[in-house]
Amino acid sequence: MKISPFRKLVKPDEAMSIVLGQTTAVEETEEVPLSECTGRVLAADIVSRIDVPPFDRCAMDGYAVRSCDVESAREHSPVTLKVVGELFAGDAKKIKVMKGTACRVATGAVLPQGADAVIMAEYTGEEKLKSGRKEATIVKILRAEPKMGNVSKQGSDMKKGAVVLTKGTVLDPAKVGVLASVGRERAEVLSRPRLAILSTGNEIAEPGGKLGPAQVYNSNSFTLASLVRANGGLAEVLPGAKDTKEGLMDAIKQAIHIGVDAIVLSGGSSVGERDLLFGVVSEMGEVLFHGVQIKPGKPFLFGKIGRLLIFGIPGYPASCLTVGYVFLAPAVRKMAGLPADRRTVKAKASRRIASRLGRVQFLAVKVESGEAIPVFKESGAITSLAAADGYIIIHDNVEFIEKGEDVEVVLF
Amino acid sequence: MKISPFRKLVKPDEAMSIVLGQTTAVEETEEVPLSECTGRVLAADIVSRIDVPPFDRCAMDGYAVRSCDVESAREHSPVTLKVVGELFAGDAKKIKVMKGTACRVATGAVLPQGADAVIMAEYTGEEKLKSGRKEATIVKILRAEPKMGNVSKQGSDMKKGAVVLTKGTVLDPAKVGVLASVGRERAEVLSRPRLAILSTGNEIAEPGGKLGPAQVYNSNSFTLASLVRANGGLAEVLPGAKDTKEGLMDAIKQAIHIGVDAIVLSGGSSVGERDLLFGVVSEMGEVLFHGVQIKPGKPFLFGKIGRLLIFGIPGYPASCLTVGYVFLAPAVRKMAGLPADRRTVKAKASRRIASRLGRVQFLAVKVESGEAIPVFKESGAITSLAAADGYIIIHDNVEFIEKGEDVEVVLF
Repeated sequence: MKISPFRKLVKPDEAMSIVLGQTTAVEETEEVPLSECTGRVLAADIVSRIDVPPFDRCAMDGYAVRSCDVESAREHSPVTLKVVGELFAGDAKKIKVMKGTACRVATGAVLPQGADAVIMAEYTGEEKLKSGRKEATIVKILRAEPKMGNVSKQGSDMKKGAVVLTKGTVLDPAKVGVLASVGRERAEVLSRPRLAILSTGNEIAEPGGKLGPAQVYNSNSFTLASLVRANGGLAEVLPGAKDTKEGLMDAIKQAIHIGVDAIVLSGGSSVGERDLLFGVVSEMGEVLFHGVQIKPGKPFLFGKIGRLLIFGIPGYPASCLTVGYVFLAPAVRKMAGLPADRRTVKAKASRRIASRLGRVQFLAVKVESGEAIPVFKESGAITSLAAADGYIIIHDNVEFIEKGEDVEVVLF
Repeated sequence: MKISPFRKLVKPDEAMSIVLGQTTAVEETEEVPLSECTGRVLAADIVSRIDVPPFDRCAMDGYAVRSCDVESAREHSPVTLKVVGELFAGDAKKIKVMKGTACRVATGAVLPQGADAVIMAEYTGEEKLKSGRKEATIVKILRAEPKMGNVSKQGSDMKKGAVVLTKGTVLDPAKVGVLASVGRERAEVLSRPRLAILSTGNEIAEPGGKLGPAQVYNSNSFTLASLVRANGGLAEVLPGAKDTKEGLMDAIKQAIHIGVDAIVLSGGSSVGERDLLFGVVSEMGEVLFHGVQIKPGKPFLFGKIGRLLIFGIPGYPASCLTVGYVFLAPAVRKMAGLPADRRTVKAKASRRIASRLGRVQFLAVKVESGEAIPVFKESGAITSLAAADGYIIIHDNVEFIEKGEDVEVVLF
């Protein structure tokens, strides 16, 4: 067992910029129905083929009138108009409002020809008049309304030919509504980046199976897959590879064969004799860095084999997930075309926290009543992060944080 | 067309507490594989059936020793031990460390019998000794280590029989890792609440189809479905109902038949003659409120038919989505067993904003360089919310907000 230390660690900022510098948004696109659009990223501008609304539309229940007919209307001196018809939303029938007349309208109805304003029902009073066998309906208008008052003009929301959503937009409920409003039932979006997830190590047993004498259950494949999916990627969990050069190379070839955008390996990037990833990636492609000045997660390796990104993530559960949150998640989001999602809260350190000079510590904490409470146990403990809401970053020149000191918690 | 005003509006806080007071988490549960667990809510406590780690585990690459043998070890006066073997992670072979001996170990290996500490490789030096035809390997230990130093004790992460995750926990990547670590390949989670989505109105055409002369495309069904899904619910979009009493009753019966937890109707809750929802819900069940003192979204109706919740949401797109974000989303989250998700940012009003006394205004804004910029156009405009990042709440006793005033933006 030849044990060689890392030669030179990269700083976390440098590691981050190398990772993001190598990461590009996927080029593949796919058409998805509206019902599956939320959270997806538009692959092309959306140009409206119609005006929205497609016609001058009544914005209130009331009476469509010619605004000039009711200029003098006041509560104490109403203007009386003859009611010539009634239009509901969806009614295609033609009614013409001429001098001295009004048309009863519902919200959403087409503004009748000749009318140029709608008087809200609250400011009107309808009456039936009988003269002999004839019956007429009149309406008293109690208030004037300027031209186009209570009318949504054709195209006022979106104009035919206009770009209503731009390429790269992340679709949320309101934007899905824009697509629907211009008549789209599908949208062309970026395909989700595909990442192969692979845990290496002879000690690993799969959940659901039986645990051998020196074995532990594979958790990293599932935490990493969960993280990838939560950040807009597709995770393909491959069967664990044995810790041999051939085992690792075969697994990487298999991932290349299925055409993923990146491989995420956990385990196998430390410095023990069986930690073969460095050699394998060097041989098949290029190691861009190996070893980052962070705690936990120091043995993180990042490289490329052709266009395929390789994330060699340390095998210890807390180290694995920390590197996952700090480096992998932003990379997946960039591949997916999603914006960075860095949410933070301010809190006060619940106790004095010591740190080691020379490494940037990502300390898992939970936040309770404004206090950041360290919950990190050890790199090997899966529960170190399960109880955490996020982490605080302790820079490499900080020896300790005092109890009660202000800290910023980056939320998971 | 009988046009009756709302009798009495409820205040938004009261509306919210009525809605949430009627809303309960779903009782149905389902088993899902680990790969689909993220974001789901545990339906039962998870008790570990094993210790994690399942054995005393070496936490470093180095040498397993008896701590008492190396008490005096220092860099200038090393202790020399005989190397009796080598253990990798996953190795089940038995090696015994007796007085004066050490076993080379890799991180993750079972701590050999007899050993009680691991000396990090960095503080050791291995040598081969030849004496005649015999070859022996020795290691110089440069540093002492207390009992259990660099060892993760069996059960130190999770103990057999302990509750490792509690009912109601929302599963994130780290918690999915806990499930995997204790050997679970599936978890019992709350079923997603099912909501039927229905747009009413004779003016509505479905996206992808052709627009008739007085028609507009249905967008509300898609914005509401998107919102429901984004908050942990399942949305079943039903075909639009005609604005007749029978049409509405049939649609509600259909939703009852397919067994949803709630019906979300958009349109049909205003005060026009064809706005039948109030009558239909009163006849089939109970209207809990009709009309809320908010802008936009005043005509919001909420009721129950048996155990089925009825959200009667105004049909105007911006009103619809505002009521969706403010009232429906929290209700869906509660049904799904998810915690409230109210994220806010502070900003300064980009301009003077007037409001009307007596109604709480939810004003759509986008946030740019610390400024909250109103983007609301009108209730009928779908683009009112598509450009927004969230809304500011202007209380019913506020006439205006000054330019530059601090505001809190509730993010979508």
